[in-house]
Amino acid sequence: MLTIDKVRDAEQILSKVINNTDILHMPIKCDNDVYLKTENLQVTGSFKIRGAYYKISKLSEEEKKRGVIACSAGNHAQGVALAARQNGIRALICLPEGAPISKIEATRSYGAEICLVAGVYDDAYSKALELQKQYGYTFIHPFDDEDVIAGQGTLSLEILEEMPDVDAIVAPIGGGGLISGVAFAAKQLKPDIKVYGVQASNASSMYNSIKEGRAIKLASVNTLADGIAVKQPGDLTFDLTKKYVDEIFTVNEAEIYTAMLTLIEKKKLVAEGAGAVALAAAMYNKLPIVNKKVCCLISGGNIDVNRLSRVITQGLLNTGRRCMLTIQLKDTPGQLSEAIQCVARNGANVISAQHERLAANGDIDTCYLRMELETRSFEHIESIKSALYGNGFNIIV
Amino acid sequence: MLTIDKVRDAEQILSKVINNTDILHMPIKCDNDVYLKTENLQVTGSFKIRGAYYKISKLSEEEKKRGVIACSAGNHAQGVALAARQNGIRALICLPEGAPISKIEATRSYGAEICLVAGVYDDAYSKALELQKQYGYTFIHPFDDEDVIAGQGTLSLEILEEMPDVDAIVAPIGGGGLISGVAFAAKQLKPDIKVYGVQASNASSMYNSIKEGRAIKLASVNTLADGIAVKQPGDLTFDLTKKYVDEIFTVNEAEIYTAMLTLIEKKKLVAEGAGAVALAAAMYNKLPIVNKKVCCLISGGNIDVNRLSRVITQGLLNTGRRCMLTIQLKDTPGQLSEAIQCVARNGANVISAQHERLAANGDIDTCYLRMELETRSFEHIESIKSALYGNGFNIIV
Repeated sequence: MLTIDKVRDAEQILSKVINNTDILHMPIKCDNDVYLKTENLQVTGSFKIRGAYYKISKLSEEEKKRGVIACSAGNHAQGVALAARQNGIRALICLPEGAPISKIEATRSYGAEICLVAGVYDDAYSKALELQKQYGYTFIHPFDDEDVIAGQGTLSLEILEEMPDVDAIVAPIGGGGLISGVAFAAKQLKPDIKVYGVQASNASSMYNSIKEGRAIKLASVNTLADGIAVKQPGDLTFDLTKKYVDEIFTVNEAEIYTAMLTLIEKKKLVAEGAGAVALAAAMYNKLPIVNKKVCCLISGGNIDVNRLSRVITQGLLNTGRRCMLTIQLKDTPGQLSEAIQCVARNGANVISAQHERLAANGDIDTCYLRMELETRSFEHIESIKSALYGNGFNIIV
Repeated sequence: MLTIDKVRDAEQILSKVINNTDILHMPIKCDNDVYLKTENLQVTGSFKIRGAYYKISKLSEEEKKRGVIACSAGNHAQGVALAARQNGIRALICLPEGAPISKIEATRSYGAEICLVAGVYDDAYSKALELQKQYGYTFIHPFDDEDVIAGQGTLSLEILEEMPDVDAIVAPIGGGGLISGVAFAAKQLKPDIKVYGVQASNASSMYNSIKEGRAIKLASVNTLADGIAVKQPGDLTFDLTKKYVDEIFTVNEAEIYTAMLTLIEKKKLVAEGAGAVALAAAMYNKLPIVNKKVCCLISGGNIDVNRLSRVITQGLLNTGRRCMLTIQLKDTPGQLSEAIQCVARNGANVISAQHERLAANGDIDTCYLRMELETRSFEHIESIKSALYGNGFNIIV
């Protein structure tokens, strides 16, 4: 049974293994006073080591001897791999073969054996179950397990010790292991605390399940926040969420991007998509509270840099620091030069430029100049456009 | 005079204002065991608040009443602005007008008045001196000042308290304020500790000055690490560096980019260029020590996201995760499709593609396909190239 003593036991066992991560103040203007519990700075880059390590430490000698198996493309894999190595046991991780090389390499670097499975996550999961039956490995579930949940619950002990006056904790929800542990432990120690969950609107399985009163399965999930892209909550986590979580909110992809960019700019912290949803909910004032001390869990920072680079670019476009312009030119000498000089005079930096002579249904005397520009703000973009119009150019987009 | 008691006094005064930032372990393979003092997570995003706040707190009531002035495009400006506000006094910051909007906005957000000066840093500096004379403001020097140096020296007290067994501290050098304070304080408390300084090879003014035995002035400095792009060390900092710093090393721009990318990937931390040079020196085994506990100062994280995005792209190119290919095609139907399919089959993701019909001195029957690809490693890039050659395509770059 899940008890506060179990969570305290987990805290004791974890104390030599994990960081008690910093809680940092987030200087943003919104309805509440926001703090960040920086689990992206945790060992393995996410909170998942807490549950995985506690679970593995509680296995019988017999179970340990057989080794553990898990299926994950991300944080759970790294948590299980490191926890197994630190407990001196074998770990086999099944991953879909399309998983980012950075995550595969990180998991391998913690000493796990990797089994790459053709197909997607569900195929890797089937393979893991098959191997478990065949070889007798102990399966480590990523969320629907009391020991795993107790491990995640240690976060509330740390938060309440450092911030006894915290009014609310906001956490991401995927399968529900994190929020279950956090909500359970927080409410045992401080019954009047609010605990809110956040999901990506494109992967709102727990949100929908709580609304419908039963754990339902989504046909598909599609979000940058891959760490919480879970089609169906667990049975145990559904019950605990229903009982202990005050309310669940959803955030869209643009809100997630902007929260990630804000963390980089204001706090020099890289969060993965799942790691930024709690902050996104607070930033965009989704919470039903005002002027309260709110602690948002930044659950992890494991994002492939290729994707991070695209998130930054999108975040820049969303906030007026990058801009795409297509300018119509007359096909006469000097036009290209004049347009480019006009942009330069107005202080924008050219990232790329393409000059195209033909367009479908176009006047044969018309060319187009497409440019990607580094800009300072939406006002700056407007001033560039005005200058171009003022020089007789037409802007298509 | 600079004494260890002054540094302790600074620590006392700063204790209510700044974070005692975390020291995190850096899991990289190199000659030494590397730890990071994360001053990028400091209030204002850099260590500069330490010196600025202590200096301002020591001003006479008369000096405080006149207000302070500083000239900086970056971290010093933010430190002075916040320190002045917290001491309830006026701050005027002169900035060159080309400074990134993000830094201007951050400085303004801490309550300083901004004076944008046409031209470059030197013009802003002249303007600041002019305004100081005209209105009697107190000038806060960014590095060549004993109180400022004592403030930066508090970093060594924190490091030695948390890591009493540290063997070496590695710090960036710009004007020399940080390294002077850190080296002075560290050697007072632990005389056998090594203190190493690091400069960008394109801005190696202190390195050259120590070699020549006098503070020399570089004609120009040009590095991504704008926080340490200083043409000439101070008189005081030159003397202190000469006396207390064991050795100075330089790192090139590519080493800085890769250190920045490594911090993002392995530790989820954003560092500015200057913030990554100490780690770069350790990573690239520039230090004359082996198997030692080394603490690298990650001095700050204030980098414009537009530049960060370019650093990430360059870092990806440097490590085989991004690749530019130009493929020669015969100008017959199906060639473009075949080349693109060949790339897709080999698991690369297309970021951009351009199909060009003409090239100078080119065969009129030849076209070129230029592609930017997301790849997994240099081996992956080689396998894509092999597949293209195997299908009869010629690769130009």
